[in-house]
Amino acid sequence: MRHLKLTIAYDGSNYNGFQRQKNAVGIQQILEEALGKIFGEKVRVAASGRTDTGVHALGQVVSFATSGTVPTERIAKALARYLPEDIVVRKAEEVPPTFNARFSAIAKRYEYRLLVTSEPDPFKRKHTWQIKSMPDIKAMQQAADLLVGKHDFSAFRSAGSATVNTMKNIYCAKWSRYGEAEICFTIEGDGFLYHMVRNMVGAMVRVGSGKITVQRFREILEIGDRRLAGTAAPPQGLYLVEVFY
Amino acid sequence: MRHLKLTIAYDGSNYNGFQRQKNAVGIQQILEEALGKIFGEKVRVAASGRTDTGVHALGQVVSFATSGTVPTERIAKALARYLPEDIVVRKAEEVPPTFNARFSAIAKRYEYRLLVTSEPDPFKRKHTWQIKSMPDIKAMQQAADLLVGKHDFSAFRSAGSATVNTMKNIYCAKWSRYGEAEICFTIEGDGFLYHMVRNMVGAMVRVGSGKITVQRFREILEIGDRRLAGTAAPPQGLYLVEVFY
Repeated sequence: MRHLKLTIAYDGSNYNGFQRQKNAVGIQQILEEALGKIFGEKVRVAASGRTDTGVHALGQVVSFATSGTVPTERIAKALARYLPEDIVVRKAEEVPPTFNARFSAIAKRYEYRLLVTSEPDPFKRKHTWQIKSMPDIKAMQQAADLLVGKHDFSAFRSAGSATVNTMKNIYCAKWSRYGEAEICFTIEGDGFLYHMVRNMVGAMVRVGSGKITVQRFREILEIGDRRLAGTAAPPQGLYLVEVFY
Repeated sequence: MRHLKLTIAYDGSNYNGFQRQKNAVGIQQILEEALGKIFGEKVRVAASGRTDTGVHALGQVVSFATSGTVPTERIAKALARYLPEDIVVRKAEEVPPTFNARFSAIAKRYEYRLLVTSEPDPFKRKHTWQIKSMPDIKAMQQAADLLVGKHDFSAFRSAGSATVNTMKNIYCAKWSRYGEAEICFTIEGDGFLYHMVRNMVGAMVRVGSGKITVQRFREILEIGDRRLAGTAAPPQGLYLVEVFY
């Protein structure tokens, strides 16, 4: 058996998230079908984590074992024949049998992209969160600074989440502005709770538009009650950029 | 009766072109249905011209007459309630009864956008033509310079076109490069034959990748036989940017 790791980019617009499911099409299913075709056997992958409906990836990682014989350097090209254009395998590597895309991950980086536009942009509606006026990036960065370090992130967990360990270590949380209209939030940490990035971005944008203060953001984080954080940012601005091993 | 002009942006990815048709959904149909809802009567629009399946617009223009009473400054917002997110009315204006979006147009500007990328980009597949290596922009600009002025553009007409007048005046034809990977061709003229921009871009990219010389491009233009120009550039890179009146 060979053990393989794939790095994948996908536009999540047309899928019901990454995970294989019964009544809708997840990216995992499309990928496993393509792998089945090139390796001539049923393949099940482990992924670094799920992404929700509408969420994108520049560097999702999956691992699997196969007895198939396609040379590693040809896997990406072979898969391209069976994958739709919105799912691209960027890299294929051999890994030791102990490697697991989910359990071997030590950190992840996400980006959240916003477009500031008074009139809706029909071209970026599936790839950014469009907001009407430029928020106060400095205030948002002050809020972001509070996230860095080891914290209990219960405040930004999702309602449906059953995770026990809500302590996560955030290495980096940075707002950047590109040109007149694009804003991007980059966050890197050892783990993320379900909906955590979208909940954080939602609350930080409320800071940036003056709806809550940085001090209030700090209290929300410290009190740790997810009902205080408010509405999550929508899925289409979120990108899983890189998984670190 | 009021006479109105609308300026519209749309992402053409999900439509069978602009024009209303029997067995597929054109943007015109969606727009006329929305206009019917806000004005309470059947509305038929005249457009500056068609755009093909997959072609986009930043500034398509339509005109129509209505006895509906929605104030002009509220039309865009009222339509937004009934239009899908990929069709956006950017401006509504009152015009004299003699104004016709098609026949009053004196010039148009198009853009054609390319992305140079060795690996396919799943996010831009519907909004750019992705090519693998950077073409020679200087050579392409030399070819573009030959297009400027009044010429018979039979060489770049489409097979199915029945147009008699193939003389068009091109005011401007310019290749630009943005950053490492984006290229854009801008062209402005008093009129365009069916598939003319895509045929030109296809031939110019062949110049840029060394498949034909600038001299050969000049011959193709002069001979005026559309079979010489080669394959058209694909629709998803083309944007109707502005119509001049």
